Amino acid sequence: MSFEPGRDIPDIADIHLAHARIQDQVRLTPVINDPGLDEALGCKLYCKCENLQRTGAFKFRGASNAIARLAEDGVEGSVATHSSGNHGAALALAAKLAGRTAHIVMPENSSPMKIEAVRRFGGHVHFCAPTDRSRAEELERLVQDGMIAIHPYDNADIIAGQGTAALELEQEVPTLEQIVTPLGGGGLVSGTAIATRAWGVSVYAIEPEGAADTVVSLQRGEIVDSYEPDTIADGLRAIVGRRNFHVIQTGVKQVLTVSDDDLRETMVLFWSKLKLLIEPSSATVIAGVRNHPEIFAGKKVGAIISGGNITPADWVALTGQSTECT
Amino acid sequence: MSFEPGRDIPDIADIHLAHARIQDQVRLTPVINDPGLDEALGCKLYCKCENLQRTGAFKFRGASNAIARLAEDGVEGSVATHSSGNHGAALALAAKLAGRTAHIVMPENSSPMKIEAVRRFGGHVHFCAPTDRSRAEELERLVQDGMIAIHPYDNADIIAGQGTAALELEQEVPTLEQIVTPLGGGGLVSGTAIATRAWGVSVYAIEPEGAADTVVSLQRGEIVDSYEPDTIADGLRAIVGRRNFHVIQTGVKQVLTVSDDDLRETMVLFWSKLKLLIEPSSATVIAGVRNHPEIFAGKKVGAIISGGNITPADWVALTGQSTECT
Repeated sequence: MSFEPGRDIPDIADIHLAHARIQDQVRLTPVINDPGLDEALGCKLYCKCENLQRTGAFKFRGASNAIARLAEDGVEGSVATHSSGNHGAALALAAKLAGRTAHIVMPENSSPMKIEAVRRFGGHVHFCAPTDRSRAEELERLVQDGMIAIHPYDNADIIAGQGTAALELEQEVPTLEQIVTPLGGGGLVSGTAIATRAWGVSVYAIEPEGAADTVVSLQRGEIVDSYEPDTIADGLRAIVGRRNFHVIQTGVKQVLTVSDDDLRETMVLFWSKLKLLIEPSSATVIAGVRNHPEIFAGKKVGAIISGGNITPADWVALTGQSTECT
Repeated sequence: MSFEPGRDIPDIADIHLAHARIQDQVRLTPVINDPGLDEALGCKLYCKCENLQRTGAFKFRGASNAIARLAEDGVEGSVATHSSGNHGAALALAAKLAGRTAHIVMPENSSPMKIEAVRRFGGHVHFCAPTDRSRAEELERLVQDGMIAIHPYDNADIIAGQGTAALELEQEVPTLEQIVTPLGGGGLVSGTAIATRAWGVSVYAIEPEGAADTVVSLQRGEIVDSYEPDTIADGLRAIVGRRNFHVIQTGVKQVLTVSDDDLRETMVLFWSKLKLLIEPSSATVIAGVRNHPEIFAGKKVGAIISGGNITPADWVALTGQSTECT
């Protein structure tokens, strides 16, 4: 399959346009460097805190851009997607702010916090069985009813929106040498790679060992048909998208993997230094940098901290923390 | 007792000088507005996130300024203070960065997290019995040994440093009408009142009901001799300082009180909207604004979010949260 840049896949101009389109509604998130964290990791790390983005994740950027593009194209009506998590909440809020209705297909075993978030932002939840097939069927039914499907990552407008986080990071810290993002379906990393291409930084993506479908796909030269994920990083269980895979093949320096234990440890490390709770998916970037000094030591590294949607109680349970600080 | 502005009590010029002195080592913390939180509170709230300051609290500002002033005055040697919490960790780090040693007198029942923080930043911990007298005696012993005492709040350099948070907030959101801070010993609110005097905003301070010594002192016209605090806001149990009380009498519009239940509820509210864990002392400002719509409704309000030094496990225990989001 081939893609035409600027139409099927966004280019840097699309990311600048996306930024202009969404910047009034998307939060300009802080970039935080902490000398104590640097000391622990052996590099200078600039954290773009998308965990502090509205809806608690970078997903609100892509969703806002996709919704705004509909209006520009004169497309009316409700939107629909499938998501077990952050994309659903993000699309719900972006739709609500634009006066549209969002319908979110969610597996019936989704976390109560994420179901609640979709509803709080005005989204309509449609439960399905927790299988790819059931999810696709339920979404197809909504599309048949006239709704506009917004894919969580294999969508040019979504990719362009996600790329705006790296654009802001570049504007704030122009001297970065490397940039690191989590990798699930690939929306964030593909947007980041496109946003930073002319900038000359090396882009690294981090997958959980238990959801390393992209590493396998890169080895094979084509996307795996199916993959049974097994990781605590619930935001990264999806199989990489077609557009996203294409960008990763051509624009990402390396895909690294980290274990669930790495994620638990770096969630605690990150909290102890920055006083921020991050979800396991976000901890991939900290773990990836920590595990690969041969790549990152001594460098100026940008890290997209993708989301903070985990309850404190779940964080405590997952990391096994007691009431005493480590 | 009378104070001479510019010597005993800082003026606005001292706060600008403090800012110039410390800005390379103090983090320019983000100011976050969240439409969802605004909706819950009925005003536009601009949160100056000092919970994301180095050492996890605004206290690092005052400590950095006090340490830098010593060098300017040619004073050498180790510093000492008494603190059950954030000032101790802040002074330890500020001293370490300046190549000095800090000695922190802490009650033997201090939280393990706060003891650990002082030590992590290179401070020497001296335990004492948990009484005012024991604390003062132990500090006096250190001063007799030649150490320089840095009072946590009743100190002009500390007040000037704490005022830099409001200065930054003013520069970022010049159209604020009101500003709200927690009130314990009064370092933060007195610095804030001085920093914002020419700006024309109304300053409000919030005390826990169980540590409302300043409200009582204002009624009497003089500082109470003793007060037995009973509140979960461990950072606000101190009796207001002399310099601080003087500034509060002349420069603070009103001191409001909130209950511990208010603090628990607003810690959860703040987390649910902003994905930030704050310690009970910080929640005072959110609770104060929520409880007083007759003062704050419809206004543009600045809130100094003072600190985030609470473990996730303690946060969960204190707020009684289950694994499901509210």
